[in-house]
Amino acid sequence: MKTIAEVEVVKPDLARRLVAEGLGTLLLVATVVGSGIMAEGLAGGNVAVALLANTFATSAILVILILAFGPLSGAHFNPVVSLVMALRREISWSDFFAYVVVQIIGGVVGAMLAHVMFALPLVALSPTDRSGMAKMISEVVATFGLLGVILSCANHRQAAIPYAVAAYIGAAYWFTASTSFANPAVTIARTLTATFSGIRWPDAPGFILAQIVGALAAALLFGWLFPRTAK
Amino acid sequence: MKTIAEVEVVKPDLARRLVAEGLGTLLLVATVVGSGIMAEGLAGGNVAVALLANTFATSAILVILILAFGPLSGAHFNPVVSLVMALRREISWSDFFAYVVVQIIGGVVGAMLAHVMFALPLVALSPTDRSGMAKMISEVVATFGLLGVILSCANHRQAAIPYAVAAYIGAAYWFTASTSFANPAVTIARTLTATFSGIRWPDAPGFILAQIVGALAAALLFGWLFPRTAK
Amino acid sequence: MKTIAEVEVVKPDLARRLVAEGLGTLLLVATVVGSGIMAEGLAGGNVAVALLANTFATSAILVILILAFGPLSGAHFNPVVSLVMALRREISWSDFFAYVVVQIIGGVVGAMLAHVMFALPLVALSPTDRSGMAKMISEVVATFGLLGVILSCANHRQAAIPYAVAAYIGAAYWFTASTSFANPAVTIARTLTATFSGIRWPDAPGFILAQIVGALAAALLFGWLFPRTAK
Amino acid sequence: MKTIAEVEVVKPDLARRLVAEGLGTLLLVATVVGSGIMAEGLAGGNVAVALLANTFATSAILVILILAFGPLSGAHFNPVVSLVMALRREISWSDFFAYVVVQIIGGVVGAMLAHVMFALPLVALSPTDRSGMAKMISEVVATFGLLGVILSCANHRQAAIPYAVAAYIGAAYWFTASTSFANPAVTIARTLTATFSGIRWPDAPGFILAQIVGALAAALLFGWLFPRTAK
Repeated sequence: MKTIAEVEVVKPDLARRLVAEGLGTLLLVATVVGSGIMAEGLAGGNVAVALLANTFATSAILVILILAFGPLSGAHFNPVVSLVMALRREISWSDFFAYVVVQIIGGVVGAMLAHVMFALPLVALSPTDRSGMAKMISEVVATFGLLGVILSCANHRQAAIPYAVAAYIGAAYWFTASTSFANPAVTIARTLTATFSGIRWPDAPGFILAQIVGALAAALLFGWLFPRTAK
Repeated sequence: MKTIAEVEVVKPDLARRLVAEGLGTLLLVATVVGSGIMAEGLAGGNVAVALLANTFATSAILVILILAFGPLSGAHFNPVVSLVMALRREISWSDFFAYVVVQIIGGVVGAMLAHVMFALPLVALSPTDRSGMAKMISEVVATFGLLGVILSCANHRQAAIPYAVAAYIGAAYWFTASTSFANPAVTIARTLTATFSGIRWPDAPGFILAQIVGALAAALLFGWLFPRTAK
Repeated sequence: MKTIAEVEVVKPDLARRLVAEGLGTLLLVATVVGSGIMAEGLAGGNVAVALLANTFATSAILVILILAFGPLSGAHFNPVVSLVMALRREISWSDFFAYVVVQIIGGVVGAMLAHVMFALPLVALSPTDRSGMAKMISEVVATFGLLGVILSCANHRQAAIPYAVAAYIGAAYWFTASTSFANPAVTIARTLTATFSGIRWPDAPGFILAQIVGALAAALLFGWLFPRTAK
Repeated sequence: MKTIAEVEVVKPDLARRLVAEGLGTLLLVATVVGSGIMAEGLAGGNVAVALLANTFATSAILVILILAFGPLSGAHFNPVVSLVMALRREISWSDFFAYVVVQIIGGVVGAMLAHVMFALPLVALSPTDRSGMAKMISEVVATFGLLGVILSCANHRQAAIPYAVAAYIGAAYWFTASTSFANPAVTIARTLTATFSGIRWPDAPGFILAQIVGALAAALLFGWLFPRTAK
């Protein structure tokens, strides 16, 4: 079996990497939003069943997006993941800014695509209140855990990353009070859908701040837990 | 662990490959239709729970059908997958036509087998309306994603294909408005069941057209993303 | 990663192999019966949810029982699997008879253990009617598929067997009308529980006959699909 | 793919190992308690759906915690696992005592973190009655099985441990009448939450005693099944 490490020997050009990041974030958000619409529509008011379906779809798409695009771009799909990778000098700062732009664009287009598939207006501001300190703490914890998973597996089980990230996000949908956004690009995109997975735009900045805090805390702690040796 | 690549060194003869494609498509459709009947019967009107069970059964059978038959026939079970493989010269055009014939026959017999197991009439035309542009766009997206997964993993994670395809179809059951048929042979077979997973026959041609468009788009984009080197 | 093949070099003695077969079948039946009791008790009449939980628990325990005991005994836990392995000369006929005895004893004790854990009488005859030709055909199909999975993966993906068998049984719980017993020892044990997973004892012989037919059909077809070369 | 064995060559220092045990147990309990709160809140009285969500989240977090921390500390997160490892001389007795202390502290802080994320009081004694002999027998069985899985996979499928433990605990949530605590540190922490996953403190000592009995029984039986050769 080829591992990700083996196929990453030849670094892909920037165009392919940005298409991978943009398309991956697009499909991730299309899945989060689309499966939320489908699940809420079918669940007849049983929100737990709807969230189970939403969880399953999100975890499953994460497995395949990271399997598919990992060797191209690293499969971040997430500005705070790219931020930590830039801080660790695994990508350059100019790559970081390009990644973040295509992640945000991809996320917004992904929400639009979900709406098109379900015959809804292209965008609509979410009315879903997700304010309050408890939900911000939830986002700190959720993003801390996500980066912890990534940095741990990158250290010693690289081939397991697609499955580990998927399992983590699936769990975090349930153990955090915020249902674990843990991703600024996805958070921005989810302000634009008035469906199951939406978030009011005034609540987004607090979520994003919390996500940055959680990611940086994980970078510090897991950087100490798994010190990197010179290659 | 032997990888698929290692055991494919000796190419199986055509008879075994066609039995693999036919039997695989048969069991795939028997599972989609049969689990739909079981789930709808037990769910007491909670369609989300029924679709969750239908999703689980479909994803699980895909894992094992691709594990079992991959080294024999490539485990396409899907005319648009075979089409893309023929365009990429991974199978010959005469193989392509033979594959499609057995896939369609296998799919129809699979629907019949599900009906026999649940003591229903052998075939019955589906009354389920799945018309409209939004559902056709859903099929384009669903099939684009399916071929994207296959071509990506074929490039760099071949041993993960059974799990990746299963996870993708499971997710796409939920994030597309059409519940992701993504397969012309399965679409034809599902016109012949008046149960949970059926589709009215007048809606089938639009689905199949959309599936071909999605598959060709993926072949183009992922052919560029992962250029093939001479062997 | 060690594969099953690598650790099977030294064949364990018969005592350890019989303990593995007996304890494995015991835990399998305890899980099938116990999770059925728990699920029916909590589901409040929603049988689809109860069967989903029963499916999940059964699939999960199969993964770990085959991982744990595979290198000791082959992890059959099933007289028709042992029958096919004896026909293929992978175990001796005297081993076959010993395996079947401990599988049946293990299964019965497993049902008793589930009853003890849920404070029910040690055994109680099941009143659940599972008669009729459609359910017998379901058992033929279910067992055919189970042996097909095992023989295919044994041919080219041995390390995937625990996951493949678990995924298959999970799917077959839903796509067959009989909820896929596919195992004579488990069938006998399930006549002794008056709970969710039970079967009336007069229906058991038909199930077992169907299971033998399905297993032999798979042995023939998959023996042809994957011819064995001399070692 | 690096296996756990390969990366364990350099043994981490005690500080990193204790952080791994403490943080892992913290996140495990936060997930068990937090997902229980979320699931009960959304399930509208359908306890089976709530327990399905609780099961999924717990299994998923176990996969990633063991993947992440296995090479550091062994990823016990459980005093009876550490006890068996000390008896087998895989860790020293002084390490055992240190592990147990951080596991208990981590578990308690994890329950508190879940409460903070859901805006509940920091601790509250659980009123949930889990008394009786049947539930104690359940804990013996649950813990026996957990140690059986760990010792079996440690013998011949070390890389599968994260998935095997997760699958086992997921199954045991359903097949035991106690929903499988199987962990003294988690049991203590769960006395401090008046939510879905709680346990009355007077019932905790019986659970812990049963867990020790089950673990020691597994150590004996699986020590005989898989004799260890000199390294």
